[in-house]
Amino acid sequence: MTEQVCYPQVKNIGLRGIPVADTRISVVDGVQGELQYRGFSIEDLAGQATFEEVVYLLFYGKLPSGSQLDFFSNQLRAARALAPEILEILAGRPVTAGPMDVLQGTVPLLADWDPDLGDASRESFQRQALRLTAQLATVLAAWHRIRKGLKPVSPRDDLGHAANFLYMLSGKEPSEHMARTLDICLVLHADHTFNASTFTARQVASSRAHMYASVAAAIGALSGELHGGANTRVMEMIMEIGSVDKVAEYIKARLDAGERIMGMGHAVYKTIDPRAPILLEMSRELCSQTGDQRLLEITEEVCRVTQAEFRTRKDMDIFPNVDFYSGITYSLMGIEPDLFTPMFAISRVAGWCAHVIEERFAEAQEKPALYRPKAEYIGEYCGDRGCTFTPLEERG
Amino acid sequence: MTEQVCYPQVKNIGLRGIPVADTRISVVDGVQGELQYRGFSIEDLAGQATFEEVVYLLFYGKLPSGSQLDFFSNQLRAARALAPEILEILAGRPVTAGPMDVLQGTVPLLADWDPDLGDASRESFQRQALRLTAQLATVLAAWHRIRKGLKPVSPRDDLGHAANFLYMLSGKEPSEHMARTLDICLVLHADHTFNASTFTARQVASSRAHMYASVAAAIGALSGELHGGANTRVMEMIMEIGSVDKVAEYIKARLDAGERIMGMGHAVYKTIDPRAPILLEMSRELCSQTGDQRLLEITEEVCRVTQAEFRTRKDMDIFPNVDFYSGITYSLMGIEPDLFTPMFAISRVAGWCAHVIEERFAEAQEKPALYRPKAEYIGEYCGDRGCTFTPLEERG
Repeated sequence: MTEQVCYPQVKNIGLRGIPVADTRISVVDGVQGELQYRGFSIEDLAGQATFEEVVYLLFYGKLPSGSQLDFFSNQLRAARALAPEILEILAGRPVTAGPMDVLQGTVPLLADWDPDLGDASRESFQRQALRLTAQLATVLAAWHRIRKGLKPVSPRDDLGHAANFLYMLSGKEPSEHMARTLDICLVLHADHTFNASTFTARQVASSRAHMYASVAAAIGALSGELHGGANTRVMEMIMEIGSVDKVAEYIKARLDAGERIMGMGHAVYKTIDPRAPILLEMSRELCSQTGDQRLLEITEEVCRVTQAEFRTRKDMDIFPNVDFYSGITYSLMGIEPDLFTPMFAISRVAGWCAHVIEERFAEAQEKPALYRPKAEYIGEYCGDRGCTFTPLEERG
Repeated sequence: MTEQVCYPQVKNIGLRGIPVADTRISVVDGVQGELQYRGFSIEDLAGQATFEEVVYLLFYGKLPSGSQLDFFSNQLRAARALAPEILEILAGRPVTAGPMDVLQGTVPLLADWDPDLGDASRESFQRQALRLTAQLATVLAAWHRIRKGLKPVSPRDDLGHAANFLYMLSGKEPSEHMARTLDICLVLHADHTFNASTFTARQVASSRAHMYASVAAAIGALSGELHGGANTRVMEMIMEIGSVDKVAEYIKARLDAGERIMGMGHAVYKTIDPRAPILLEMSRELCSQTGDQRLLEITEEVCRVTQAEFRTRKDMDIFPNVDFYSGITYSLMGIEPDLFTPMFAISRVAGWCAHVIEERFAEAQEKPALYRPKAEYIGEYCGDRGCTFTPLEERG
C-alpha cells in the first residue's frame, strides 16, 4: 500500500473528515441530511420500528423476524434487574452526584456481575452488549429515585424498554403515547457512526479492553457539553431566556461575545439534522396535549433568530441538531434537564456496543490495530540527551 | 491553510505516525530510543528525581524549587485520604472484581467529593489533578486489602508517595530501597506522549468532559492487553513457562501459531525502550537481595529467544518494552500480577491529568476541536432514502 492519501491538514482539526476505519453499522450523509442504520433510513426506523428492533438491527446487522424479536426482547427483559449490591452502592453516593458520573462509575460495577466477562468471543460480547443495554436504563432510573429519596422501582417484564424505563423512573405505568414518544427518542439516538463517544469506545476496545471498560469510557466522552452534554445546555439556555420576547437580545449578546448557541450547527450535517424535525414534531404533539406552548415557542424562536443572525453576520446557514429538540421533548415529558444527557446514553449504549463488537471482531483489513496517533512536540528541547537536570538541592 | 499533507494511508493503521495535536509534555524518539518529560531525559529523572518532582514537572512544565516541592508534596499528602463513603462502596464490590474495573468505577466517585468539579478554570483542573493523583493510589491499596479481607490502611502523611502506597498495601513501612524502587517505577510510567490511554483522556476532555470523566476513560484504555494490560500478561507467561529450559519450546510454539510475545516490540520504539534497561537493572538488584533468580532468568531467556527467533524468522530486530520488565520488578517486590496494570495507572494518572490540562487550556492553534474522525461506510446501502423497510408483521 504505497498509494498516497492527502489532506489539507490533519493536525489540530480533530480528525474531521479523516477516515480511520471501516464500518457497516451506520452512515451519515451530511450534505443530504440523511442518517441510516444498517441501510435503513432513520425516518423509517423512527416511524415503524421499536428501540428493541433497532438494538437487534445494530447488534446483528439485520431486522429481526417476529420470533427473533420476541426471543431478543425477552432476553433484554430478563437482564433488566440489578444486583442488590449495586443498588446499595448507588445509595452510597451523595445525592449531588452528577448523573453522568453515576452512569460512568456504575458500568464497571455491572462488569463485576457479568458471567461472560472473561470470555472474549463474539457471542460473549453480544451477551454482554445485551445486558449492558438492558441494565443502563435501570441504573439511571434507580439513581434518579435514590437521589430524590425514593425507593428504586424494580423493572417489570411485561413492558417494552421505553415504557419500563418511564415506569421505573416514576413508579407509574406511562400512557402508550408517552412510551412511544420515548421509544422514538431512543431509536433516534441509538447510533451516529464515528461520533466522539463511539470513537472513544472503539479506541478503548482496540486495546482489547472489555465491553464495560469501553462503554464507561464512552460515557465520559458523551458527558462533555460539546457532545451529549449539549441537550442539557440547550434546556438551560431556554429556561434562562424565559420568554419569547427576550430571545433576540439573548442570542445577539451570545454571538457578540463569540459564544456558540448550543444545539445549533453540527460537525457533520451541513443541512438539517434528520433527527431534529422528528423530535420537533413530537414536541408539538406533546404541547398540544399539555396546552403549554411557552418552552417550545422560545425554542423555535431561538432557532429562527440564530439562523437569521448567521445569515446577516456570516452569510451562512446554520441548522438545529438532535440536541436542540431532544431537551424540549424530554422536558414536555416531565423529565428533568440533568437527565437529558444520561437518557442519550441509555440509547447510545446500543450503538457503542455494536461498534465495540465491530472493532473487536471485524476482518483485520477493515479495522486498525490500537489507535495510537502522534503528537507534534513543541515543548522544551535540548537535544537527544535532554536538558541539564539540576538536582533538587542545587535548585534553591 | 491549503497546504496538503500526504500519508501512505490513514485508514486502518490506527493513526500510527499521524500527528493530531501539539504537545509540550513529553517526546519520544523511537529510533534513538529516547524519552523526555518536558525536555528532561527519562534516565536523569529516574536517576535523580522523585515521583512527586515528576508530577510537578508534568503539571507545571518545570522542575520545582525546594520550597515549591515541599508545598506541592504537602498538598498531595493532605489529599490522600478517601471519604469513608468511598471505602464503604469499595467494600460493597465482590472480591472477584477486576482491579482495573475497580479503579475505573471509583474515579467517577472521587468526582462526587471534589469541591472543584463545577469550576472549569485551569487552576481548578490543576487542583483536581493533584487530588486524583494522590487518591488513585489510595483507592488501589484500599481495594487490595478489602479483597483480601483486610481493613484498609489509612495513608500516612510522613511518607513519600511511593513509600506510602507500599505502606497502605501491606500495613508495614517499606525499606528505603523498596520505596525508592517503586518511586523509580512510578517515574518511568508517568507519561509517554500520545499513547492509547492518553489519547483517550484527551479525546474525552476535548468534548469538555471533566477531569475525572477523562481519567476514568483512560483507565479503560489502559486495561487492554495491547496497552497497560501487557505487564500482567508478561508475568502470566513467565509463570506459565515455569523454568528456563522450557522457554525456547514455548516461544517457538507461540510464534508458530502466529501469536505475539507479550512485552516484546513497541508501536514507537524501533530500538530498546529506554525504560526497559532501568527496570532490568532494578530487577537484578532485587534478585541479588532475595537470592531467587528463577523468574528473572526465565524473563531474560524469553527476551534472548524471542530476539533470536525474530532474526531467524523475519530477519528483524525486536526489543523488550517497559511492560517486559515492570512485571518482574513488581513481582520481586512481592506484588501480585493483577496489580501490575493498576500500578501502571497510579503513575500514568499524572500524565493523563497533565494532558487533560493541556487539551483544555492550550492555545487554540495547538489543539483540535473535539476529535471526531470519519469511518468509511462499507455496509448495506440502497441509496439516499435507505433500503425498503418491511414492517415487523410482514417479516414472518
